[in-house]
Formats: sequence, structure tokens, C-alpha cells
Amino acid sequence: MARTLEFFFDIASPYSYLASTQVERICERTGARLEWKPVLLGGIFKATGNISPLTNPVKAMYLMKDVLDWCKHYGIPPLVLPEAFPIRSLTADRLLLVAQEQGRLPALMRSLYAAAFHKGLDVNEPRVLGEALKAAEMDAAASMAKAETQAIKDALRANTDDAIARGAFGLPLFFVGEEMFVGNDRLHFVEAALRA
Amino acid sequence: MARTLEFFFDIASPYSYLASTQVERICERTGARLEWKPVLLGGIFKATGNISPLTNPVKAMYLMKDVLDWCKHYGIPPLVLPEAFPIRSLTADRLLLVAQEQGRLPALMRSLYAAAFHKGLDVNEPRVLGEALKAAEMDAAASMAKAETQAIKDALRANTDDAIARGAFGLPLFFVGEEMFVGNDRLHFVEAALRA
Repeated sequence: MARTLEFFFDIASPYSYLASTQVERICERTGARLEWKPVLLGGIFKATGNISPLTNPVKAMYLMKDVLDWCKHYGIPPLVLPEAFPIRSLTADRLLLVAQEQGRLPALMRSLYAAAFHKGLDVNEPRVLGEALKAAEMDAAASMAKAETQAIKDALRANTDDAIARGAFGLPLFFVGEEMFVGNDRLHFVEAALRA
Repeated sequence: MARTLEFFFDIASPYSYLASTQVERICERTGARLEWKPVLLGGIFKATGNISPLTNPVKAMYLMKDVLDWCKHYGIPPLVLPEAFPIRSLTADRLLLVAQEQGRLPALMRSLYAAAFHKGLDVNEPRVLGEALKAAEMDAAASMAKAETQAIKDALRANTDDAIARGAFGLPLFFVGEEMFVGNDRLHFVEAALRA
């Protein structure tokens, strides 16, 4: 039976973006099924008392260099951080769940991450969200309205609560069965677990 | 000209231990020269306002699993954490500098890490330190006396201050020229930099 990779991520998280560029290929290589799980990183931090590594200025300086090392390693464009940082991603994350219902989650995720981390735009701005939705071939107005429904709000909270209940303290987060891995830099362990 | 890898580590740091099992091989593979730099992790945390990831209980639970993943990956015995944790390593780290003067640093480092992370012993206990020194073929009494001299105290502080001045916030830490890498999980970037 094919294994499943659960990928928990947030549009606000640069390291989630890095991992998002790899997870589909890993699933192709291993024959695993990919389950996308948008969550709110802020909710995980709040529940666990963990804080963003970017809040420490000495750490933050290195992390900006580190994400560029990863971009080079993955052969993707150098990441830029939006001026509006930390990123307010609540609406963007909810839109991912709207997209998921229409089979458009990967397309919208890519256009949102490109807006945030290639163009440095504020993905909390309706104009930026509208363009990302269009790029993902989704109806912007209908999707924005849908994102404000209780069902979508509850779905994002349910994903986040699920991650917290299973031991999350940061993102990106991966589950292979009940085995948890945290961080873009653990993808080699994720791949090994999918092959095991 | 051969490149140099500066390896900053502390006997108190499980991830430094993991990296210590790899750095010599990396230098062999790349022809790099290895510079061992014992430092005091507590001093780095104090200077930068950073804290041990093990202080967050949710994070700590995952990190114990993560270090075991790395042990399996490296083909080394499963790491055990000493009961006396966090590890008080001030004397152990000073002894490394005594050992360095006699060309015995790698031997003593291995016996100290084995005491702490294979046997779970308290490397702040004179008896444990004495046995580690003997295993490294060093004179225990003379080395313990030497570790208390001002020159050795100053040398550990100088290494620590050097790391802090160059941007350290955690361990293990690596420099290839002035390029910094932080974490056992960045050794693939270290190796690439040594080959560049």
C-alpha cells in the first residue's frame, strides 16, 4: 500500500516555502500520496510557547543567509522577504482551503509563495490575493467570499489543532504515518521514511 | 591552498556531538584542515539572548527523537541524555584546551562525548573526567590542575568571544573562511563550501 506524506505548512513561513518546492518530487520518487495541510503557524507558536527564530536578531541575520543557501541548493530563485514581515497569512491560508475544494491548492500555493517570496508582496493585501487567485485560475471574488465562511475558518483551525495535538511546535511539519519530522532540513529523513 | 574548517563545539551540546562524528571525515574527503574550537554554549546563549531548544518541552520531545534519527543516519550508537541535564561542561571544555596543547584533543573529545552521550554520565564529576582523561592517555591530576590555570580559562573565553563576535547564536558552528554555518544539519553546505 502506498504511504502518505502529510505536509503541514503556512504561507507565512519561508522554510515551508522551501519545503513546498520539494514535496511533490519526493512523493513522485517514492510513490507516496501527498496530503496538503495548510495551518496557521501563529496558532502553533501560541499553543506551544515557541517563538519564531526570526525574533532573535543574531539568529535572523544567519537565517536570511541560510534560506539563500537552500535556494541555491534547490536551484530556485533567491528568496526575498516581504517588507511586511512577519507575514499576515490568515486569509491566504484560508484561500488555500478554498482552492483545495476545487483541486487548485498546489497552483494557488505556488502563486501565493511567488508573490511573497519572489516578488516580496504583502499577501495580506486583497489586490495581491486577487492576482494570486487569477494566476491559479480561480474566481477571485467568489473565493474571497468563500474564505470568510465559517466552514473554511473551522477547517484551517482544525488542521492547526490537529498539528498541535500531534506534537507540532514549528513549520514545515511532516507526518509519515504517526512519525513526525520538523523542518525543511529533515526532508531526507522524510524521504527515507516513505521508502521504509 | 587547502581550506580550513573551524569547528566550534561544546561537550554540553548533543548536536555538537553528532557533528563531531563527521567533521574529520569531511576534512579527509575535501582535503581541508580542521581547527577544533571548544567554546561554552552558555556564553553564546547569554550574549545573544538565545535559549536552548530543549527548554521548550514540546520541542524537547521531538529533539530527542531527532537526535536518534541522526544517530541511525550516521550509523553511531543511539544517543542517551545524561540524567544531569543540561550538562555542566565548563571543566570538560577547559580540559579540551589542555588536551589540544598536547595533540590529544580529538581523543579526549571522543572519551568525554562517550561518557556523556553513550554512558549518560555526568561530565562535571571529577571521577568521570579522570576516567575520560585516562582513556585519552592523559595525566588526570596534572590535566585537572592545568584546566584551572588562568591561561586555559582565558583560552576558552577567547574561543567563545570569537564565535560571538562572528555571529554565533548556537552550536555546532562552522566557519569556512568567513562563511558561517550553524547546526549539524548544515554539514552538507559545509562540505560544499570546502569543495568550492
